[in-house]
This record gives sequence, structure tokens and C-alpha cells, in this order.
Amino acid sequence: MKLTEEQIKEIKDQQSQQNLTKRVTAPQLEKILYDALPILDHGFIRVIDYMGDDTSIVQSARVSYGKGTKKVSTDSGLIKYLMRHWHSTPFEMCEIKYHVKLPIFIARQWIRHRTANVNEYSARYSILDKEFYLPEPQYLAAQSQSNRQGRGEILEGDQAKKVLELLKNDAEQTYNNYETMLNERYDGSTIDKNGVGLARELARMNLTLNTYTQWYWKTDLLNLMNFLRLRADSHAQYEIRAYADAMLDTVKKWVPITYEAFMDYRVGGTEVSAKGKNIIQKLIKGEKVSIDDSGLSKREWNELMEAFDLKDKLI
Amino acid sequence: MKLTEEQIKEIKDQQSQQNLTKRVTAPQLEKILYDALPILDHGFIRVIDYMGDDTSIVQSARVSYGKGTKKVSTDSGLIKYLMRHWHSTPFEMCEIKYHVKLPIFIARQWIRHRTANVNEYSARYSILDKEFYLPEPQYLAAQSQSNRQGRGEILEGDQAKKVLELLKNDAEQTYNNYETMLNERYDGSTIDKNGVGLARELARMNLTLNTYTQWYWKTDLLNLMNFLRLRADSHAQYEIRAYADAMLDTVKKWVPITYEAFMDYRVGGTEVSAKGKNIIQKLIKGEKVSIDDSGLSKREWNELMEAFDLKDKLI
Amino acid sequence: MKLTEEQIKEIKDQQSQQNLTKRVTAPQLEKILYDALPILDHGFIRVIDYMGDDTSIVQSARVSYGKGTKKVSTDSGLIKYLMRHWHSTPFEMCEIKYHVKLPIFIARQWIRHRTANVNEYSARYSILDKEFYLPEPQYLAAQSQSNRQGRGEILEGDQAKKVLELLKNDAEQTYNNYETMLNERYDGSTIDKNGVGLARELARMNLTLNTYTQWYWKTDLLNLMNFLRLRADSHAQYEIRAYADAMLDTVKKWVPITYEAFMDYRVGGTEVSAKGKNIIQKLIKGEKVSIDDSGLSKREWNELMEAFDLKDKLI
Amino acid sequence: MKLTEEQIKEIKDQQSQQNLTKRVTAPQLEKILYDALPILDHGFIRVIDYMGDDTSIVQSARVSYGKGTKKVSTDSGLIKYLMRHWHSTPFEMCEIKYHVKLPIFIARQWIRHRTANVNEYSARYSILDKEFYLPEPQYLAAQSQSNRQGRGEILEGDQAKKVLELLKNDAEQTYNNYETMLNERYDGSTIDKNGVGLARELARMNLTLNTYTQWYWKTDLLNLMNFLRLRADSHAQYEIRAYADAMLDTVKKWVPITYEAFMDYRVGGTEVSAKGKNIIQKLIKGEKVSIDDSGLSKREWNELMEAFDLKDKLI
Repeated sequence: MKLTEEQIKEIKDQQSQQNLTKRVTAPQLEKILYDALPILDHGFIRVIDYMGDDTSIVQSARVSYGKGTKKVSTDSGLIKYLMRHWHSTPFEMCEIKYHVKLPIFIARQWIRHRTANVNEYSARYSILDKEFYLPEPQYLAAQSQSNRQGRGEILEGDQAKKVLELLKNDAEQTYNNYETMLNERYDGSTIDKNGVGLARELARMNLTLNTYTQWYWKTDLLNLMNFLRLRADSHAQYEIRAYADAMLDTVKKWVPITYEAFMDYRVGGTEVSAKGKNIIQKLIKGEKVSIDDSGLSKREWNELMEAFDLKDKLI
Repeated sequence: MKLTEEQIKEIKDQQSQQNLTKRVTAPQLEKILYDALPILDHGFIRVIDYMGDDTSIVQSARVSYGKGTKKVSTDSGLIKYLMRHWHSTPFEMCEIKYHVKLPIFIARQWIRHRTANVNEYSARYSILDKEFYLPEPQYLAAQSQSNRQGRGEILEGDQAKKVLELLKNDAEQTYNNYETMLNERYDGSTIDKNGVGLARELARMNLTLNTYTQWYWKTDLLNLMNFLRLRADSHAQYEIRAYADAMLDTVKKWVPITYEAFMDYRVGGTEVSAKGKNIIQKLIKGEKVSIDDSGLSKREWNELMEAFDLKDKLI
Repeated sequence: MKLTEEQIKEIKDQQSQQNLTKRVTAPQLEKILYDALPILDHGFIRVIDYMGDDTSIVQSARVSYGKGTKKVSTDSGLIKYLMRHWHSTPFEMCEIKYHVKLPIFIARQWIRHRTANVNEYSARYSILDKEFYLPEPQYLAAQSQSNRQGRGEILEGDQAKKVLELLKNDAEQTYNNYETMLNERYDGSTIDKNGVGLARELARMNLTLNTYTQWYWKTDLLNLMNFLRLRADSHAQYEIRAYADAMLDTVKKWVPITYEAFMDYRVGGTEVSAKGKNIIQKLIKGEKVSIDDSGLSKREWNELMEAFDLKDKLI
Repeated sequence: MKLTEEQIKEIKDQQSQQNLTKRVTAPQLEKILYDALPILDHGFIRVIDYMGDDTSIVQSARVSYGKGTKKVSTDSGLIKYLMRHWHSTPFEMCEIKYHVKLPIFIARQWIRHRTANVNEYSARYSILDKEFYLPEPQYLAAQSQSNRQGRGEILEGDQAKKVLELLKNDAEQTYNNYETMLNERYDGSTIDKNGVGLARELARMNLTLNTYTQWYWKTDLLNLMNFLRLRADSHAQYEIRAYADAMLDTVKKWVPITYEAFMDYRVGGTEVSAKGKNIIQKLIKGEKVSIDDSGLSKREWNELMEAFDLKDKLI
């Protein structure tokens, strides 16, 4: 990731602020506020603003439950209780805003989470930067044979090289033709002073999906955790996971108690169906279990056994 | 409005905070942060937290429109432009959180705005305070004859007095019986040491709708303006308007440029239908207009004439 | 539940429709369309309209996953897969609309689910019916001692009788005074022909929270299941559970395959935290477990043991 | 637009359904149900399902306002009243579902409307069709000089030809390389039987933004009108307007009374700010007006004059 002079100056200006406030602050998060944390080859995330911390969750829960929460002696105990029992509204009381630079095909996956506020750079108004995502060799994987939306083996040297060349050449060629159609280069200079440029809202359609875009993305902590649970999961596409992992780290700095409860109950936890519970109960009692009378499909059976690390039960 | 010792202490503690932050701050709003601004007889609003200010709106608009916004010379010009053209997402980049104490029948009106985060005091867990809304005499109005959801003349002395007595007596009696059923007083003391209290989740059903409740209510600036546009309007019920007016004032302290644009384009503005535009154009040209060939209903005609203060055209 | 002549006629008219459509239909649900299914003493739910059925979920999943779903041989297998892996959008493709009559204190709990469309009867415009919820004796329970938001033992005869009398008398008295203030009876007749009625938007504040209201409530299947998961749960307040149970039954008639998957994976299932998984794995292996080195609180430990019906492990 | 054999058969099957229902139906909409209405060169919209009609809006309004709506004699009068006064919830009681095929750069604009349910074809699972949007010559416009997000003059023959060639060649080349990387052709045939294909979730990044995608898009009537108001507007990009115009036509067939009110009050109407009202009032009175003491910017002044077709007042 390379920032422009202008971006570096903007970040420095923002970070040089020292304002007094009566609001609660999150000291660990303040330390990295505005920093551009690099993701993939040209992307980044920056925490731009936030509201609330762990105590805000406790505060609103205590408003809801009134004197009823006094028994719970600690903030940590209360937050764990709320997480375990899927209480949602207290976690909505914290808000965070990110500035994200990301490839368009990842932006399209990301935007499916509809409960956030978004301002995206508009290619109707302005020219997109000349930056494309090109995966590092270790992430160039073959199509998985067993999972239609997964990756399999890493591609071998020659094929990987060829793929990267195709991606690079096509991105550059389509970007060059984008400039040609616009009659304007990415740095704002005109190509042909007597020429006329195609409307930006049309020219952009020639760009490839690995072109980088950027946006401001603001959400509350509950919906952020819903996003991270799906996108930091091992089944998520690597490229969005890279963003989710970095965001997880900002959550840890922002609301450390909530982060820990989230990792225990959501990220590290599992769900068991009614039928699955039967099997687990039998296993605990030392009874024999078999898929035949379990009511589970083969796939479901294996998912259950994997969740509890019972490798010898896989079929 | 009377605060308990405990509440006064909590507010003082919150206000004594002096934290350093790199986030933007809104100095006028900081001055009243956590203050309990009295509304009606026992209600209040308190600003508990906020995120962003006028510059945050400008910042996110500039991300969207990139170099395209450089032409607009001032923040104020850009915010006015965004407001006039119903741009929505930049205004979503600011967030505010209120602590509100309000009568239940107003809470029921308020909650219809679904785009906010809410934590309400739970009467399943805890006992509600012994506080009811009793209107001041000048707000005790008769049913409007012309508008099914409006108020007419102020009630005269005797009837007003009688109404107030009924409201007061019924609220007190039902609250007393609420305590009797709970076998517990509002201050937590037990009534009959050998008795058993009805479940709180049941006993609450005996309370009247003017009982006060409280909640934390958090929303972004766009949705707050949508709320205020409807609820600070002269057609809104007085009791919710009292809250909306106080909140309008906090918006002024928080984002003064946006506030001004909002008052000009939304609160003070009007809408004109396609048919209405025809009439206005004729009036400007000095042509005769008549409801007969206008396509407007009588009601619609009068609404148009009132919007432009053309009282001689009312029919 | 007693319906007025007018209501009975309206339902008959609606049910006598026989329209031809090219849309998919849910035959079992059509059979009870518009029926007023009685809930509590005066409440009901009626299914007023719906969109889609089980095949609509499959159809939209197949659009998303294209040729990728062809391998899954059956609709049922696909729906179970989607439910198990928390796919959300296919379930949003079905929509249902209910007409519900319910006590106000339950309406206040219900409305916290913000993702539905609601039109509630407005007591600013019109006079509320003279109907209050009075629990049947077997639902008049004492406050739970162990759970601040739960019920304990059923009240004994005398106390139950007294509670019911208080509830009944207070509801009737406050309603009578509501009429007095309005100068109008619930049937629309005027009380004092020379008198003036208080504005309806004010008079309503004298009503108790067990007064019945009604609304149209429309939601998609995903959000309906989120609602039912919480509200048909044994920890939900009985009065809202009565509605949720009846709605569960309409889901069964509407989308029977989805209903079955929902009961297995959500209603009958459980979640296990990362720490909980460790305990379960040890139990399966026959190893000793103890709360001391589990990282679980006592409460959490017991919740885990209860989920798997390990009563001898409760502490 | 060319449909595959398979698609034509699916549409015929869907249209051959003749189901009996007690739900309300919209006869004009039934006539075009499932039809693929062609948009742009390869796109379409199809109405797949709907819920409710004009009477559903009236029905839910009458529930809200109870006896209060009896005075309004006609459904049409009530719907116009609701539209004029920005009542929102009654219009949420109708729901519609579209199947849309559209270029990716338009899909990205469209998805910014977050209040709909969406299932998009997933290029992680499946291979995208070999179809790209190539504008017809009359829509190949130069960048507007006055409006950063608008179009100016139509490009002249030679330049238009060159632009079209670039778009076509780049789309084809990048698609061919997409196939090469996948080791699979769009028809599912393998290219090199001994080769290994790149993961679909990666290969897709090489496609250009004019590649077509498709989705199911479901929304309520209120949010549909919000979408159409912005996207059928003359300032919207032509390519999305083409979809919005076709959808407007389906609204007309579905809820004809609401459609008419929408065209009058929203699409054909205008807003006037507080300052603008002053100017209009002066104009009606025949007084002189000037921008200097109006408080309006030059841009705002011209927008006002254009809204009322006062071309001689433009400056």
C-alpha cells in the first residue's frame, strides 16, 4: 500500500488533533485512530471515528434492566451474559466508522450487509485510481472439487505465473482504454486537447472487478459482529477475510471485554440441532450412535463430528 | 422534573470527565452533555454521546464525489446542496444518543420510527417510578371538530379541573394497586412480609398510559431529521413536540450548518404537486385560477393557498 | 373472543373471494386465510395475505447459486442446508401479513422487533374498544425468586381472586373515566349533548396497559422466524408466547419444509461456546470435568448441562 | 435480449399456472406476470410475485384511523391524502418481487437502496453469462461540462465507433481470459482436460463492469416509490432509468390509483424552501424580486425558476 503525499498529510493532520471531551474514550483505539492499516496489495482500513466503549453497553443494559442488574457484580459478567443470551440492543449502543480501500469484487460482497451506512467514491463524478488487486502466489488457488464456493490446492508455478500475467495485463489494458475514452489520465491531465471525453458514468464500465474503490462504512457493534462472524470465518473468501481479521483487531482495542465474549460464544462456538443434541447425549452416556437412525444427512453428521473434533466418527 | 440524589451524582460524575481524543468534537454540544433538560412535568432528555459534526458530513461527501466537490468552495455551500437535493448518506455519518424520560403513550408514538436503536427500562425486571404525566391547564384541549386527530379550544376551568382530577386519581389508584399486587412499594420496601408478590411482568398491566418510562435512543442525523420533521411539526401532538423542540435545539448546538439548511429546506419549506405547480405558474403570470379546472380537491386547494399565505384564495 | 356483526361480515366477504392467479399459493394456509384465531381472552391473529411458499426459497437460492445447486437433489435438502448454515436472504423472499388484536403491554414488547411493517389502530383518531386482558387463574403467577424476569408459583385462590378484582375494577373505572372525559361512549353515543369532549389524543392516557389494541403486521419469513425463536421460547412471557405459538402454526401451514428445518435447527437446537465445546468433548471421551478449570461461571455451567439434559452434573 | 430455451420453458411453465386464491389480485399485473420485459441490450425485468393492491393500502389505513376514515368517501381520495401528507406505513403493506438482469455497474448503483431483499447470482459458485452491455450510439455521450455527474453531447460517429470497439474488445478479451483461467467455457465445457481451473471466486475479478449479472429483488411499495423517484428522474443515469421506467409501468398495472397520486405529488411535484416561498409569494403579488436580497445562491435561484418554468428569470 502506498499513500499519496496528500493522504499522508491528511492523516497527520487528523492525528495531531488533541480535543477535550466529556464523552467516554477508548484509549487503545485512540492510538491507531486514522492510521491506514494495510490490507492486500493496495487496500487499507482506517478507523475514522467511534462512539462508546464497553461501559456504554453496560450502561444501557442497566437502564433496561434497572435494579435487576445490580446483582451481577461485574461489567464483564454482564457483557458475557448479554452475549450468551443473544441480547442485541445493548451492543447497538456503540458505533464505529471505517475508511476502507478495497477491490470492487470484494465491495460487492461486503455491501450485501445492508445495516450499515455507506459513502462510496463515485466513479460518476471522479476518475478511479489506477490500482488493481493482484493476488500473491500463495493465494492463487484452484477451484475446490468438493465445495462449489471454495478454493482447493495452490496453483503451481507456471500456471500461477500465467494467471497473474493475464490479470495484470487485462487490468492495465482496460484501465488504459478507460483513460483513452475519458480523454484524461488518472492524474487529471488531458490526453488530446482537441478531443472530447466520454462521460465518466459510462467509461467506468470498462474497468475490471479487481479495480480498487473506497468508502466510508459506519455501523453499530452488533451489526459489526454479525459481519465479522461471517466474514472472519474460515469459509469466507480470503480477500474479505483479510479485512475482517484487521477489523477484529480494532474491535479488540475498542471494546476488549465484548471482544472476548464474542470470540468465546460466537466465533469459537458452535450450534447443535435438536437431532444433533440426541447424538451428543448418547455419546456422553457411552451409547452407540449411528447415522442410520440419527435423522442426519451424511454432510450434517460430519459437520457435527467436526465441530466436536470427533475425527474417528467421520464417515 | 426532580432528579434523585443518585441521578444527580451520576450526571456530575459523567460531566466531570475530561478525556483527550483525536476525534472531532462539537464544543457547543459538549457544554450540555449529560444535562437533564426538563420536558413536560417529569420528563427530560439528555444527550449522552455523539459522533461527528458538520465537517464529518463534508468529509464523507468529498469521499463520494472525490475531486468533483472541490469546486464547491465552502462547507456550508456543500451541506446546503446535499440537503436541497435529498442526498442522504452523508448525513448518516453522524450519530447521537439520547437518554429520554417520557410518558408511555408518547413512547408508543415515538417507537414507530423504526430506524433507531433503543434500550427501554424493562418493567418485567424492575418497578416503574411513581410518576405520571398530568397536562398543564393550557394544554387541556377539547377534541377538534374539523380535524380528527387534532385539538380544539382549551377546556374551561371547571371541566379542566375535573379532567385533571380524574387523571390524577386514576393514575394514583392504579399505581397503588400495582404496588399492592407486587407486594412491594416503588422504593423497594416490602408491604406484607408474609405475602407473595404478583410477577412484575403481569402487575405492570394495571398502570395507565401516562406513567413515565425511560430509554436510551440512538440514531443517525438523517433519521433524526426525519423524526424531527414530523414531530416538531405543528400537526404533531403537543406532548411529543415538546421533546422534538428540545432535540432541535441540541441539533443546532451539534451541527449548526446542517441545522440551518434543515430549517430552510425541510421545516420551513413546502411541497407542490404537479397540479399545484400549474396553479402557481398561472398566479405568477397574473392569470385567473379556479378550483374547478385545477384538478385539486377543496382540501388540497386550501393547503396550497395556505402554504403560500394566499389567504384571500381560501374557499 | 367475540367478534362484532360487522367483523364477522367482513371476514365472510373476504373468504368468499375466489380469484385466479398465476402466483404460487399455499393451499393449507388458504384454508385459514382471514380466520380470526382466538388468543387470550379477547385477542386474535388473522393471516390477511402472504407471498411465496417453500418453492420461492428454493427458487431464489438457485438464482444465487446458479448451477451450483443442481447437485442438491431435493428442495427439502436445500432448505435444510440453508437453515443450517444461516443463509438469510432466500428466507426473506417470502412475506406474510397478520391482523392482530393484543393487549397494549404485549404490543410494546412486540414492537421492539423493528424489521416489520406496522399499521396500528390510532387512539388519536378513534376510540379504543372496551376490552381488557384479564389473565386466567392458571396464569396468575408470583414473581420468580430466582429469575428477575420470570414467573414462579401460581397464586393461591384468595390472592388470585383479589388480583383479578383489582385488575378488572381498575380497567373498568379508568375506561369509564376515559368515556367521561371524551364525552362519548365506546359505541359512539354522546354522553352530554351540551358538553365538550377532551381531545382523544389526551384522553387515551388514562387507559391501563391491558387495554386491547390492534394492528396489521407484515414481515418476511426470516424476520418472522427471528421473532418466533425469541417469543415462542419458554423464557418469553406467556402472553406473547400465546401469539407466537399460534403464528408458528400458521408457518407450518404456509411453508411446511422450512417449518421443520426451523424447529430442528433453531427452536430445538442449542449453542455451545468455545469453552463449552471443551467440556462436551471431555465428557464424550469419558474424562472428568469440573467447573473449576472450565472457565465457566456457575450459571453458564448449569445452562450447558441443562441443554444436554445432564441433570446429574447440575451444581 | 435473447432467452435460452431453458428460460423460455421456465417462463411458460410459470405462466401456465392457474391457482385459486382468496387473496386480492391485480388483474392487469397478472397479465404480464413472469414476462421478461427487455431493457438495454441483454437485460430484462420480470415481475415474479406481488402482495396486495390499492385496496390493501386503504384497508390498513382504515385500521389505523378507525372510524376516522369513514368520512373520506372514496379509496382514491384516501390514497391521495396519504400520499400528500407523507403517510408511509400504509404503502408498506404492498410488496413486489422482481427478477432483474442488469450490468454490474448498474447493480452497484441499485444496491445502494438498502431497504430491499436481494438474492444475486453468485460468481463464487457459478460462471457468469457471456453478455456485456454495449450502449447504443445515441446513448454514447460526452462528459457534461457543467455537471460533474452528467452527460453532454452525443459523441460523433468516429469517436463513438472507436469507443464501442474498445468496450467490445476489452469485454470479450477479459471474458475469454476468465474462461482460460477457469479452464472452463461459459457453456460448462472443459478447455484442457488435464488442466486445473482457478477458483471461480478469484477468476471473476478479471471481468469488466459491463458484464451482466442477475438478481431477485423484493421490496415494499413505499421503498419502491423512493427508488423510482430517484432513479426515474431525469438526473439519473440513463441505464438505470431504463429499468426504473419499465418498473414504473408495472406499478401502474399493479396499483393504478397509487401510481397516479405518485406521479402527481412526487414525480411531477417540486419542493420549495422557506426562502423560495418568499420569492414565489412576491412574484404572485407582482412585486419585484432579485437574487441579491433573496438569500439564494445563483444555482438555487435557477433551480427554483426552472421548477416553475420561469425561463425569463434565469440568470
